[in-house]
Amino acid sequence: MNAANRPRPQLKIRRINLDTGRENVVVISSRSTALRPEVFRGFSRVELRRDSKVLLATLLLTDDGLVGVDEIGLSEPAFRRFGEAAGSLAEVTPAARPVSLDSVRAKIQGHTLTAPQIAAIIEDVTHYRYSDMEIAAFLVGSASFMSNGELLAMAQAMAQAGTRLTWDRPIVVDKHCIGGIPGNRTSMVVVPIVAAHGLMIPKTSSRAITSPAGTADTMEVLARVDLGVNEMREVVNACHGCLVWGGHVNLSPADDILISVERALSLDTREQMVASIMSKKLAAGSTHLLLDLPVGPSAKLTSAMEALRLRKLFEFVGDHFGIAVEVVTSDGRQPIGNGIGPVLEARDVMAVLGNEPGAPADLREKSLRLAAHLLEYDPELRGGAGYARARELLDSGAALKQMQKIIDAQGPTVCRNELGTLATDILAKRDGIVEAIDCLCLNRLARSAGAPIDKGAGIKLFKKIGDRVEKGEPLFRIHAFGEPEHELAVTAATEDSGYIVGSRAASGESMP
Amino acid sequence: MNAANRPRPQLKIRRINLDTGRENVVVISSRSTALRPEVFRGFSRVELRRDSKVLLATLLLTDDGLVGVDEIGLSEPAFRRFGEAAGSLAEVTPAARPVSLDSVRAKIQGHTLTAPQIAAIIEDVTHYRYSDMEIAAFLVGSASFMSNGELLAMAQAMAQAGTRLTWDRPIVVDKHCIGGIPGNRTSMVVVPIVAAHGLMIPKTSSRAITSPAGTADTMEVLARVDLGVNEMREVVNACHGCLVWGGHVNLSPADDILISVERALSLDTREQMVASIMSKKLAAGSTHLLLDLPVGPSAKLTSAMEALRLRKLFEFVGDHFGIAVEVVTSDGRQPIGNGIGPVLEARDVMAVLGNEPGAPADLREKSLRLAAHLLEYDPELRGGAGYARARELLDSGAALKQMQKIIDAQGPTVCRNELGTLATDILAKRDGIVEAIDCLCLNRLARSAGAPIDKGAGIKLFKKIGDRVEKGEPLFRIHAFGEPEHELAVTAATEDSGYIVGSRAASGESMP
Repeated sequence: MNAANRPRPQLKIRRINLDTGRENVVVISSRSTALRPEVFRGFSRVELRRDSKVLLATLLLTDDGLVGVDEIGLSEPAFRRFGEAAGSLAEVTPAARPVSLDSVRAKIQGHTLTAPQIAAIIEDVTHYRYSDMEIAAFLVGSASFMSNGELLAMAQAMAQAGTRLTWDRPIVVDKHCIGGIPGNRTSMVVVPIVAAHGLMIPKTSSRAITSPAGTADTMEVLARVDLGVNEMREVVNACHGCLVWGGHVNLSPADDILISVERALSLDTREQMVASIMSKKLAAGSTHLLLDLPVGPSAKLTSAMEALRLRKLFEFVGDHFGIAVEVVTSDGRQPIGNGIGPVLEARDVMAVLGNEPGAPADLREKSLRLAAHLLEYDPELRGGAGYARARELLDSGAALKQMQKIIDAQGPTVCRNELGTLATDILAKRDGIVEAIDCLCLNRLARSAGAPIDKGAGIKLFKKIGDRVEKGEPLFRIHAFGEPEHELAVTAATEDSGYIVGSRAASGESMP
Repeated sequence: MNAANRPRPQLKIRRINLDTGRENVVVISSRSTALRPEVFRGFSRVELRRDSKVLLATLLLTDDGLVGVDEIGLSEPAFRRFGEAAGSLAEVTPAARPVSLDSVRAKIQGHTLTAPQIAAIIEDVTHYRYSDMEIAAFLVGSASFMSNGELLAMAQAMAQAGTRLTWDRPIVVDKHCIGGIPGNRTSMVVVPIVAAHGLMIPKTSSRAITSPAGTADTMEVLARVDLGVNEMREVVNACHGCLVWGGHVNLSPADDILISVERALSLDTREQMVASIMSKKLAAGSTHLLLDLPVGPSAKLTSAMEALRLRKLFEFVGDHFGIAVEVVTSDGRQPIGNGIGPVLEARDVMAVLGNEPGAPADLREKSLRLAAHLLEYDPELRGGAGYARARELLDSGAALKQMQKIIDAQGPTVCRNELGTLATDILAKRDGIVEAIDCLCLNRLARSAGAPIDKGAGIKLFKKIGDRVEKGEPLFRIHAFGEPEHELAVTAATEDSGYIVGSRAASGESMP
């Protein structure tokens, strides 16, 4: 009798209401009838099988009635991913390590991985076969060195692991900012301008993870954003563009898993960033990509040299995959627009699109310049005419009209979208000129106030770099709904407003 | 009002019967009254406070009755470590990242860490402030490069984080093998010889993690091994030596945590190994240490060059801490002794100590040589007399008597210690000479048969390298208690016995 054919212990599936995030977790009784639980320890890995389905999971043990002796409890994500009914039987055995972990070990020891090795790792990550610990090992092992070949293989493998969008147009444009600058909701101005011109721009965005608002959070103030692939297609076909959350579209799902571990570990490497962004664009079917790299003392990139190195990496990967990549560096010394937090940022965007008198000029100007680059991809447009065309579409109200069309197509939002009712002004402590604004500090303050969970929480700026202020004059206003959040943000801002007010006039140049 | 003094949300502690191993895990309701659970995600980190007590833990969310809306559920390890009664109140807030994680990030980016930075990391690991993911990040980040200074700082910090033993003798000897060779229970022969001579040898050992038996598992066949520090002291004062499990003595507890993550990731770097072993010896108060490095094709070290590099590292760290380190390389081409598995190995040990006719000569000879090295540390003994003295103590029965004294002092075992009742011989498939034996293969087979969980499961060898065998003659016998384990091991051994039988006589040298 062959060992492989021997009946293996079976346990009844029980659903356990535990949200364990990206990690599959299962629970067995330490008096389990079918397993020998003394073979296992907490956090060891087990394999569940039923017919051809296999699930790898991290095991926890219990003594009490959480699961019966003939049961195995599946946490919510594990239950959903295994897809078998409660009460059905599953074989449970100690898990064989995914073979691709040998490559992770090799990488840690300094070897360079081949494309098939990287594809196997990404395949296993996508199917939740790695524990968080194992994902961390892969990311950290790759952080010290990643060859160009590895970077390409990684972007390619990640793009192939999820949905691949295709469009029946020769030109599909996209824009992407590497983030880090508060406000800066240019996509929400650029997409309607470009779509109004008739170029296709199917934009997916992320929600905030460590910032007070992502484009998806801000767009959600105006419209529904959690569209599936087919709904997204309909919107794009009707409007040439969309502004949806990427989470339901399943582009490069391994990337989402890797990013969540990177954030938890505060890891942030150039190669991972490039692989991540390019895998999403490859999966989204983009043919032309404009990248915005803000440079500033509290931005992700602090020097032109860093931006240059990153640009080269993006160009290299873009060339390899046949995506026309253009990279612009931008002024990342301070927030773009006056609002920080979803409702305030959405108001900035609508003010720019509506050509309102108080609309933030920096957001308008930066969006026009980015839109101009994208419009130049249109072979019909005369070279150099992009900026004038962008301004025409914005000033005429065509962009606003296109935005309304996109909002209608995506559907109404269900979010509260009023502004936080508790408001306190943070005042200048001296006369002078605003010399610097700390982006990281303002991000933290806006998050303390409740953004992005409370859409109407955040910060409204009254002063920017170069502005003259008098002692006692408001620098910005904090908005919040809850008293504790309001107080927390105000206390922190009183200690450190993030503003440096001095006697010198700040440098007037707007681009580094 | 200062934010720091503001009352923070409190939840009632509930004990949740979940064994989550080294990681602290807590559970809150997604309808929690005091927290805003939407701020948290699965596997984010939270901080519990009550008075001056602080606990960092990984958070899971639940919708149902596992915990009430005003409760926080603490898994067993978290409950034990927090040490507060069920029903008492604790403040719960999103956890601030341990500051030492900044050093982990710096290490990943290629920086060399200072001793205080490493001490802070080890301090946080020891107090369970790191998640498994964060521990993995530290280990992998250190795997590619660790300076000598970092290695010293790590060993020192780990030794200081737990119990420090001190002895009122100028000479306290210890021996340690880096493992990997089946059988090889020399400590259980060496300790009674050395103790019978009157040198102090307080030996702590580990249990098997990936092998079929550790010294602690094997000693447990004969005596109790889970002694606390004070009990261990009593035994050592009465008998000059002991053979106890290190788990209750709390020497270098951070090392135990790091090792458990290393094993889960199959990480195995020289520097970590040296830091780990030397931290334990430093904490144990050893003054003289003999290290056994087996070299062989399926051993941890496969060449004399590797062994040399490792020796230099051990000598460097030993010199720095004032521990006299002596390193011997030994023949790691095959198992030492005839038994693999706790009961079989204990029988080998007692046969050697009892000078029985069938006692394995290789175990006797290797133990005598190691004991000779240790006895030479006695200034009273004439140089070069160590081997003769060791043999005298063994042949006279003094070592056996000392072992009985140690067994009596440690107390009787409660384990089953009979041999596995199901037994099958694995036969040679051809005539010839045993040319090689795969240690990894035999370890796997013995584990499949149930060792070390079933103490009496394992493998009894009939043939060693250089022995002549005839087709159909038994190479070894598999012992097991359960039919499934027995069958699994027999099936695997029939496919691959780990023995290479050829026509050439194998090299007769016993040391590489």
